[in-house]
Formats: sequence, C-alpha cells, structure tokens
Amino acid sequence: MTECDIPRVWYNVIADMTHKPLPLINPGTKQPLKAEDLYPLFAKACADQEMNYTDRFIDIPDEVRDMYRIYRPTPLVRATGLEQALDTPAHIYFKNESVSPVGSHKLNSAIAQAYYCKAEGVTNITTETGAGQWGAALSLAAKHFGLELAVYMVKISYNQKPYRRSIMQTYGAEVIASPSMSTKAGRKVITDRPNYQGSLGTAISEAVELAMQTPNCKYVLGSVLNHVALHQTVIGLEAEKQMEMAGEYPDVVIACFGGGSNFSGLSFPFLRHNLSGEKQTHFIAAEPESCPKLTRGVFQYDFGDEAGYTPLIPMYTLGHDFSPANIHAGGLRYHGGGAIISQLKRDNLVDAVDIPQLESFKAAALFARTEGIIPAPESSHAIAATIREALKAKVEGRAPVILFNLSGHGLIDMSAYDRYFANDLSDYHVSDDEIMALTSKLEKIV
Amino acid sequence: MTECDIPRVWYNVIADMTHKPLPLINPGTKQPLKAEDLYPLFAKACADQEMNYTDRFIDIPDEVRDMYRIYRPTPLVRATGLEQALDTPAHIYFKNESVSPVGSHKLNSAIAQAYYCKAEGVTNITTETGAGQWGAALSLAAKHFGLELAVYMVKISYNQKPYRRSIMQTYGAEVIASPSMSTKAGRKVITDRPNYQGSLGTAISEAVELAMQTPNCKYVLGSVLNHVALHQTVIGLEAEKQMEMAGEYPDVVIACFGGGSNFSGLSFPFLRHNLSGEKQTHFIAAEPESCPKLTRGVFQYDFGDEAGYTPLIPMYTLGHDFSPANIHAGGLRYHGGGAIISQLKRDNLVDAVDIPQLESFKAAALFARTEGIIPAPESSHAIAATIREALKAKVEGRAPVILFNLSGHGLIDMSAYDRYFANDLSDYHVSDDEIMALTSKLEKIV
Repeated sequence: MTECDIPRVWYNVIADMTHKPLPLINPGTKQPLKAEDLYPLFAKACADQEMNYTDRFIDIPDEVRDMYRIYRPTPLVRATGLEQALDTPAHIYFKNESVSPVGSHKLNSAIAQAYYCKAEGVTNITTETGAGQWGAALSLAAKHFGLELAVYMVKISYNQKPYRRSIMQTYGAEVIASPSMSTKAGRKVITDRPNYQGSLGTAISEAVELAMQTPNCKYVLGSVLNHVALHQTVIGLEAEKQMEMAGEYPDVVIACFGGGSNFSGLSFPFLRHNLSGEKQTHFIAAEPESCPKLTRGVFQYDFGDEAGYTPLIPMYTLGHDFSPANIHAGGLRYHGGGAIISQLKRDNLVDAVDIPQLESFKAAALFARTEGIIPAPESSHAIAATIREALKAKVEGRAPVILFNLSGHGLIDMSAYDRYFANDLSDYHVSDDEIMALTSKLEKIV
Repeated sequence: MTECDIPRVWYNVIADMTHKPLPLINPGTKQPLKAEDLYPLFAKACADQEMNYTDRFIDIPDEVRDMYRIYRPTPLVRATGLEQALDTPAHIYFKNESVSPVGSHKLNSAIAQAYYCKAEGVTNITTETGAGQWGAALSLAAKHFGLELAVYMVKISYNQKPYRRSIMQTYGAEVIASPSMSTKAGRKVITDRPNYQGSLGTAISEAVELAMQTPNCKYVLGSVLNHVALHQTVIGLEAEKQMEMAGEYPDVVIACFGGGSNFSGLSFPFLRHNLSGEKQTHFIAAEPESCPKLTRGVFQYDFGDEAGYTPLIPMYTLGHDFSPANIHAGGLRYHGGGAIISQLKRDNLVDAVDIPQLESFKAAALFARTEGIIPAPESSHAIAATIREALKAKVEGRAPVILFNLSGHGLIDMSAYDRYFANDLSDYHVSDDEIMALTSKLEKIV
C-alpha cells in the first residue's frame, strides 16, 4: 500500500448499530446531553462527531491526512515466526501501529483533535496520560499545529517512565505529575491521600478543570469517547484492504482494551460486515486481569473521571473510585469501557477476556524473539489473547485467520521487561467484594 | 516502494576505486593479510568480502533479503517541516533507517553476518557494542538464525543506558559490561585503571579474545570493516531509486560518522557516479568534536582495538589508546575511520566536519519538533551538518538537494535529552597535544 491508500474517511459504527449507545447524561439535571452542551469542553467538530448517530462515513480533513502520511499506511504483517513457534495451523496477522514516530496508534486521534482545535481558533489544550503513549502523541500533534499543551501524567508513570515524560518535553509540552497542587481536584486528592500515586481518573479531572479555567482552551481525550474511536478506525479500514490484498478475511479480531481506542479502531470496520449479516467474525477485547471492567464490571451510568467533572457515561465500569494495581500496562488502567463498546458488549457483538500480567509478559517475550518487535505491555495483552486462540485452534484442528493490533512498541518500557525476567512481577486479581462495593455506590439512572 | 524493490545486490565500492585501500597488516609478521588469515576470526564469507577488490556487486542471499522485509524498504522523506523552520531554499531529504525494529540501520549488517555464520555451521558469536544499537541489532539477528550471542557492552553505556541492555536480553543475548573479568584484556584494564568506564576499543579486545577461546565461535563487528560497509549499501541503493522517484539527485550527502557503517551505506552507491565522472556530489561525514579522527587524526596503520588483537588497519586515527569523552553519541566514540573511508578521504573524494555536542542536540530538538521523530544522538550530528549546509545555501542564494541519513531514533536516549534541556551537557574539545602524543607512538609502517 502507498500513501494514496490512506483512507479518506473514518467509519462511524453507531450509524449501523441497531441498539444505539445510550445518551450521555448531565449529572446535575439528569437530562441527556446535546452536542452543544459539550462545546465548552471539546472542539465543536469533536462534540458533533461524539453525537453523530447517522453518518456512516465522515471525511478525514486534508490537513489530518497530510500528517497521517508521516507514518501511514502502517504495515500488516503475517506473523510466521510466531506461528512456527506455536506450531499452530492458525494464520496470524498483526497490524503494526508501533511504526508511528511516537511508537503507538494514539497519533491517529491526536492529529485529528489538534487539527480541529486549531481550525476553531483554540490556542491552548489540556489532556491526561497514563503510561504516556497518548501524551507523547498529542505533544507531537500540538507542536505540529502550533498549540500550547499541558499534560497531566499519572504520578507513578511520571516517576517510573521518565523517558515518556522526556519525549513530551522534547516535543515542547508542559508535563505535570498528577495528582498535583495546580487544580482543586488534585489538591483534594493530595490532601486526602498524601502518598497516592495517581490514576487516569484523577488526571482527567485535573485536565478538565484546567481547561475550564483557561481562556481559549479545550480539553482533549485519548480514548473512551465516540469521536476518538471514530478517528482510530483508520487502522481497521487500512487493515481491511490489506487483508484483501493477502487474500484473507479475519475469523478473529483481537486488540487490547483500556478505554477502547485501539480495539475500536481495528475492529469497527470489520464489525460492520457482522452488523450487515455478511460475516461472523469473533471480536475479542483483551483487558488486564487487574482491571476487568468488560469481563466483570457492571453496566451502569458512571463518571469518566474520579472527581465527577465529566458527563455520566453508559458503560461497563468498576466504579470511578476503582484504583487499579500498578501494572506496567499503564494504558489499560481505566475503570470504564466507553459507550459504544459497552453497548456492543451488552448485545453480545463483541467479547472480552482478561489476561494476567505474567501471561502478557510471557507472550511479549515470545513475540519479541519470533517477530523481532518488542511490544508495549498494553499490546502484549492482545498477543497473549492471540496465543490462546492459536493454541485452541491447534487442539481443535481448526485453521482460523487471526488478526490482532500491535498498538505500540515497548522500547520505553524496558524496565518492566527487566523486572519480568528477574521474576519480580506479580499478577493482581480483583475480588468480587471490591467490585460490588465500588459499583453498588453508583447512582441508578438506567 | 514495495518489498519487491529491496535491492538484490550490495555495492562494493572498492571495485570502482582508482586507489584501492591499503591492505590489512599482520602486526607480528608485518605482512599483508590474505582472506584465509581472517577465517579463524570471521565467517569465511565475510572474510572473503573483506578482501574482495574486484566484484562491483555482490548478491544478497535470499535468507537475508527475507529478513530485510521486516522493515525494508525504509522511507525516504522530504523534510518540509525542517525546511520551513530554517527558511532555506535547499531541498532536504532523509532516509529513515530508524523504522527498523531495533531502531537503527545496524540490522542491515547484523542479519547478513548472523546468516553467514549460521550457514557455515557456527553456533556461537561474540561482539561489542557502545551505546547498544549494534548489540541490539545483532541480538535480534542471532535469535532469528538460532545463534548464541555474547555482547561486551561499554561499561558507561551498560550503566547509563539500561534500556538497551534490556532490549538485548529480551532478544535472548548475554550482555557483559566491559571491561570485565571474563577476559585477559579486560582483567588487564581493570587492574591498571580500576574505575575505567570502558571504550569500544577495549570491548572489541574482549569480544575477539572470547571468540578465539570458544569452540565453533566467530567474532562479529558492526562497523569499520569493508564487509560491514558493503552490507550497509542497501541503504544508498534504495535511496538512489527513491530520489529518482522524487525526480531529484543529491548535491550533498551527509551521514554521521563513528566507524563508518551508516555513512558508507548511504554514500557509496551515490559515490560510484562521482567515481565514474557522471556526478559531483559532495559527501560529508559528520563526526563529534570530541572524537575527530577524520578531521584532525593522522593517516597511519593502527590497531582496531585497544589491546592490539586485531590486524593493523590503514586509517585516519587518533591512536588506539584514545579515550573519547563520555558524549551521549556513544556510537561515534571510536578512534579510527576504517580503510575504505580513510582512503577516500585521503583522495579528497569524501569530506568531514566535526560537530560539538551542544550543536548536535540543538539540531535534534529542532528536528523532533518539525519532523516528529526524535533522533538518536549519533544521527543528530548528521542533522546538525545538514542544517549548516541548508543555512549556507540560504546565504549564498543556492537551492541544493541535501540527503542525510537518519540512522536511528533516540527513544532509548531520552536521559540525554533531559540533560540537554536542563543545560547539563558540555562540549569537549580535543587538544592538538593529545592527538600528537597518542599518534606519534604508532609504529611507522606506511
């Protein structure tokens, strides 16, 4: 594929869904939100995309497509080395999003959101980041479009992953460890829990608060929301063409799952052929055992952040107070699943599995040694789920075509690999009691 | 370009040189070496390539080309963002070798050398690495071809760049900090200088010694030698085709210079049109101010390593006892220039400049913010030299086509960027006295 084959549209799966996602709710009035209600917080174009339930395809602006050309189309690779190592009859393919200059798929939406902000005359933006993949992507996109960016980075990652912080600073962004003293939400957390190492939920609260208090400033989010999923469908639209060139169609599509951005991006374009009845592909979201919202959470309205600044989102959730264990897949440490995915899961259109941390690193090491690319700890969950499917196929004597998303590389996560090889990592099981305690506190609105 | 466009041959510049490089010399007998003399140390195929002065093109084995497909062809990119920032009429292109799974061009020769060792029945290999780019590349290639690998890593990098060590271990290699107690050469250095942080020269001595004492083991080198330069010409052969597709031909070709692997790889295929009289491209090797062998060294026979285990090589050198400052471009900290490049330099067919460390980081930051890719500290020297040429062109009202090699990305070198932004880096000038003291000790053989 060449630059000419970069898609010219994104795919909006909501238009094809029989049961649409439930609306976002204003927590004060308990009324459904309209797009206009989101204009103070998000770029207008993004707010409109968030509420667009009708247009199947949405044009990718030329300026966005121009910047996609830095790294797109990304390769689709047949994982022959992994197939041989597993001695499986399955055909394993992966979409390699790690080739972006920031090392992950996150740039696909960062470019779009930064562009829309710039086009609407915004000068400053804020965001949060966990492991730093999203923050790095948005830092590059903000610099490209001439926007000032402040990133709230979860404190444990800020300290444990200094390279990602450095990358953001090299691109010119301001990076603040969260919780911080710079916001009311941050100050409250620091006061209540002085040694707290932060969470995505807290960092979102801080970024939203700063955006609301800064002139000509918008908030930008890297996952969970509908418009982010929309931008990421460039992955699956490319992969669909590439699979066609390879003469195959996936029986199974797998991606890791934090807030849903890379899972949605790869799977929705294929899912549309399920929704139309043409295909019966099996979609598997691979989440960490330590943060099992799709496999073990409840379907409920919940806040997207810890402080309760965001609208209420209809989703599978572990409760917005859930504090996930400090696993190395920082990008998967989020309590909820997003409105579209959660509806699809509720309708049994997508499936989910949870992967223990040690299994994810074992899969990562095998992948590195057979395919040459060291995967991000997040992406390793997709590899582990792929290996499960490939081994099952071998036992059952089937030869399915499995496609997974290599959402990012792990070159900035080598300290995690060191700990894995030194037998210094653990699995983290979440008890039913904890899930029930946190989710039973949620308001019953549905 | 597609996989089909990956070159099927490497280009051997020696065949086209009027003045061939002087022969390697046996330091004991003072006689010129034959290929057979190198068979105990290197794979036979590599030793034969080292001494091949006649064949212009050498076939790339299918197994090597198959593995090149993981990341080749690499992109050729017009650096429009950098051009705009410099407001220069120059057209700036770069060949992006950072897209390899290990992040640099080093894989081009690692694959070839590991393949030849395997094909000849070798089971174990040894090498040295400075910053770790070469060691990471060879670790992946060794795993692919089923070879056991021991890497001697310069101690300061072993401690300062733990991520590169982790990458090698993740691919399954054994990594030893050099100087070490595992070899006679290492023990001598540790005894003489207990706090010495190592050098490439010492690490080479250790790797050679271990190879000579291990059954069925060969030594593998990532730069300096003719066969390494040969393998790297895949870069320039691809770039030549890509420039043609862009409708341009370079007036200036620039690459950073440590032992010569990426400079040779990009420049030799273009240089052949200078040697035939068709073109008059200007070739610039960008070396660090702190290790200025091409710009300020002497042309002399010298050892490739510190202990004097290697043959004597005819080259521009600062003396094999030279201890370069601890700059972050670890891959450029080598005392000599290799036989081919040194002969070309002597004949004024290639040029060299030396770049202060701070200028290289300033260039790197500008490149990251305009082109989106954070460059390796080594590659940043090529960017700095490119910026010099582009600004000169602007003053002089010329619009040259400049092509440089982005030999690798800097995602594993972020601590160096942190220090740069904190104003915690220095320049290192080498005095004439030091150069004279070290080079006047060399035996006069020429």
